[in-house]
Amino acid sequence: MGPTMLAVRFQHSVTPNALRSYLAEFLSTFFYVFAVVGSAMSSRKLMPDVSSNASSLVVVAVTNAFALSSAVYVAANISGGHVNPAVTFGMAVGGHISVPTALFYWVSQMLASVMASLLLKMTVVGQHVPTYTIAEEMTGFGASLMECILTFALVYTVYAAGDTRRGTLGAIGPLVIGFIAGANVLAAGPFSGGSMNPACAFGSAVTAGSFKNQAVYWVGPLIGAAAAGLVYDNVVFPSHAPEEVGV
Amino acid sequence: MGPTMLAVRFQHSVTPNALRSYLAEFLSTFFYVFAVVGSAMSSRKLMPDVSSNASSLVVVAVTNAFALSSAVYVAANISGGHVNPAVTFGMAVGGHISVPTALFYWVSQMLASVMASLLLKMTVVGQHVPTYTIAEEMTGFGASLMECILTFALVYTVYAAGDTRRGTLGAIGPLVIGFIAGANVLAAGPFSGGSMNPACAFGSAVTAGSFKNQAVYWVGPLIGAAAAGLVYDNVVFPSHAPEEVGV
Amino acid sequence: MGPTMLAVRFQHSVTPNALRSYLAEFLSTFFYVFAVVGSAMSSRKLMPDVSSNASSLVVVAVTNAFALSSAVYVAANISGGHVNPAVTFGMAVGGHISVPTALFYWVSQMLASVMASLLLKMTVVGQHVPTYTIAEEMTGFGASLMECILTFALVYTVYAAGDTRRGTLGAIGPLVIGFIAGANVLAAGPFSGGSMNPACAFGSAVTAGSFKNQAVYWVGPLIGAAAAGLVYDNVVFPSHAPEEVGV
Amino acid sequence: MGPTMLAVRFQHSVTPNALRSYLAEFLSTFFYVFAVVGSAMSSRKLMPDVSSNASSLVVVAVTNAFALSSAVYVAANISGGHVNPAVTFGMAVGGHISVPTALFYWVSQMLASVMASLLLKMTVVGQHVPTYTIAEEMTGFGASLMECILTFALVYTVYAAGDTRRGTLGAIGPLVIGFIAGANVLAAGPFSGGSMNPACAFGSAVTAGSFKNQAVYWVGPLIGAAAAGLVYDNVVFPSHAPEEVGV
Repeated sequence: MGPTMLAVRFQHSVTPNALRSYLAEFLSTFFYVFAVVGSAMSSRKLMPDVSSNASSLVVVAVTNAFALSSAVYVAANISGGHVNPAVTFGMAVGGHISVPTALFYWVSQMLASVMASLLLKMTVVGQHVPTYTIAEEMTGFGASLMECILTFALVYTVYAAGDTRRGTLGAIGPLVIGFIAGANVLAAGPFSGGSMNPACAFGSAVTAGSFKNQAVYWVGPLIGAAAAGLVYDNVVFPSHAPEEVGV
Repeated sequence: MGPTMLAVRFQHSVTPNALRSYLAEFLSTFFYVFAVVGSAMSSRKLMPDVSSNASSLVVVAVTNAFALSSAVYVAANISGGHVNPAVTFGMAVGGHISVPTALFYWVSQMLASVMASLLLKMTVVGQHVPTYTIAEEMTGFGASLMECILTFALVYTVYAAGDTRRGTLGAIGPLVIGFIAGANVLAAGPFSGGSMNPACAFGSAVTAGSFKNQAVYWVGPLIGAAAAGLVYDNVVFPSHAPEEVGV
Repeated sequence: MGPTMLAVRFQHSVTPNALRSYLAEFLSTFFYVFAVVGSAMSSRKLMPDVSSNASSLVVVAVTNAFALSSAVYVAANISGGHVNPAVTFGMAVGGHISVPTALFYWVSQMLASVMASLLLKMTVVGQHVPTYTIAEEMTGFGASLMECILTFALVYTVYAAGDTRRGTLGAIGPLVIGFIAGANVLAAGPFSGGSMNPACAFGSAVTAGSFKNQAVYWVGPLIGAAAAGLVYDNVVFPSHAPEEVGV
Repeated sequence: MGPTMLAVRFQHSVTPNALRSYLAEFLSTFFYVFAVVGSAMSSRKLMPDVSSNASSLVVVAVTNAFALSSAVYVAANISGGHVNPAVTFGMAVGGHISVPTALFYWVSQMLASVMASLLLKMTVVGQHVPTYTIAEEMTGFGASLMECILTFALVYTVYAAGDTRRGTLGAIGPLVIGFIAGANVLAAGPFSGGSMNPACAFGSAVTAGSFKNQAVYWVGPLIGAAAAGLVYDNVVFPSHAPEEVGV
């Protein structure tokens, strides 16, 4: 790709519509991170010893499900409703958005997450912003693998929800995206944290000033997202397949 | 606007259809406040020390999500399903309903909330109606800012759900409105209370006879609602934008 | 109405399609009662002192929401998906089904509830089937009034969900019906029990052999259901109203 | 059926589209089992004495509801979204898929479940994979009967959700399938375990190396599934019935 083409692609990434889509990603990611990180803080306030109670897990997981459904919904028709750099990466790998646009999405998502975490720190006085942690008995590789699997399931669902061949089922797409995220948090919360979202992990880490294990929340999700996109597009539901593929 | 125009607009606000929409707002707000304030009372009955348990937070948050979804749904085709003076304010700022109509909406919503709270007090003997409270360590400004952000997210979602350009996604609008409310309560419950609804805060305050911090539950939500309407209509999804704005 | 007309109407109530709709009501009510009464037994097994914990309330309320959504859904196109004698009563008062058909619905719902409760007693050895109870401090009138209000909200939602003028929103009808039921249980569980369903109260009472307070679970819900049907059909959304009544 | 016909049917089961549907079943079952078994492990980690807490039940039940909704959704247009050998059996009994195809579905579902359980064991160090257990006071017959009833409700819902005569209600099919599963787990979790899915029970048993009571999780669900399919197709909603069968 020569410099001219790069410039052209970049120009496509700064049209008014493109700028609106970055703002949509910013707002949706902000809503999502504010709710998710806030819920972790609120369950910790209610129960100082968070790590040992199933109710706290329900609080964080249901917040994930509800907030992600809504956040994806409000941005769906504008930016596609990624709300997650791993989803954006999976979409770029599948060729559904251009690389320059993906980079602008990432910047919007990161900024939104940092700003949401900072506003939580500012308003909720007297509590540190929590970061994702890994269970003591687990290895970094195990946690990465778990986050990779969880993100695979999430991004595969995002691909399915955005597939126009689904007909009326398309209407509930944002709900099932939120639901798989909630289910995954319930499964992995006390083990790898169940982030599936590098922006969320990054924002809380910046605000807390601790980047311990940050790599786990990037490597695993990005690999899982890329794999999900490739499997969905090329193997399970290739676009050159006949329209009717039900059995 | 001269007195004649005012009279005309007022006349538009007392047609049979308009009166039906006020009744629809009254009923939906009644259902919502009865469930939400009732759930706070029921979790307090089950656990005398409500402020220190994550299960109670789940009780109130899930009630918010479920009751708001249903309340918005049943009024959607009649009044638009605001169920919340902040939403009505955000709609009036965006020019989607006239000011006199908005005032009648407010009166309906207030009356419904007071009546729901009074009926709860009457039927549930031996318990005070709870009011929203702010965590000790927080400032009034911090709590207002938090309620402002939460209401921004809620009203932005209401705008998105009511946008006819969303196609089939419109079908799940009431659900995602309920879900973002539930997620926000899980995030902010133990901090600012997570009201996002001045009518709900007002009704319980009237019944309990305590207006402490009432301003927090008006200033924050109204500013957040107005900002959400303006951002959605003018920046993210302006009505003069081309139909297809996906990236 | 002469005896001939009665005979004609009765004949309409025993056609193959009518019999199928009774079976559909039987199955849906069976699924619903099995799940709801089962969840009360399961939370009691997990926590012997059920009456004092918010998690048990969440168990029963979420079961109500999930099971009612599904039960209404599977019967929706066949019998209308009442799953509740109060709903059937509200539909008969509004003239949406004939009185003989309503009576057959009632019998199907009662039989289903008794059978579900008996099967629970049979399979779960060593535990009594629980019945709805009223908080000590409440009066029978207060509990009836509360059940009346809760059932009003439920049946009003059923009417709204079945209204074909709602367009695409019709698709999520069964979900919001389940959601309002779940919200109401969270609000009223520890007070009046949050039944809203005479069949459910009857089935568990028969199996437990205790009809204490049974009247509360019939009088309140039936009055609330009738009122909801009349208000919806005649006041809020009369069928002779213009198609477009949004504001 | 002669050997030639068998060969023909087998050929229909190894076309590219058929292979894609097995992969879709594999992936959806993997996502579902990973979340469900993971949630049981995560609530056990948070609360060592899992069997005595309602919050743990909520964790596993909500995971079931959320994960099954999503898993059914993503496979719906490809394989029909069975995600469960009992559902596949019920579909084969009703003649909706051929026996050879059903066998390939079973193999995919089993493999997925075993692999999900093994990956959980691998990543989560220091915890055994849990298997379904039956309450001490129950008989094996009682538990089978309970699983049979629960699976009847689930498969009946799957049949209803896949019925194209439902019109717009078809859009929420995957959600109500997940919801009935979640409600059933809340009702039966502490009694029979609430599996309803032989693949899930098999995968965790293989990984844990304990096949105690395995028959309960096969006999009950398979009988319930077959009965549900036969009742739905032949009695409640026969395909030769007139299009309009509402009352």
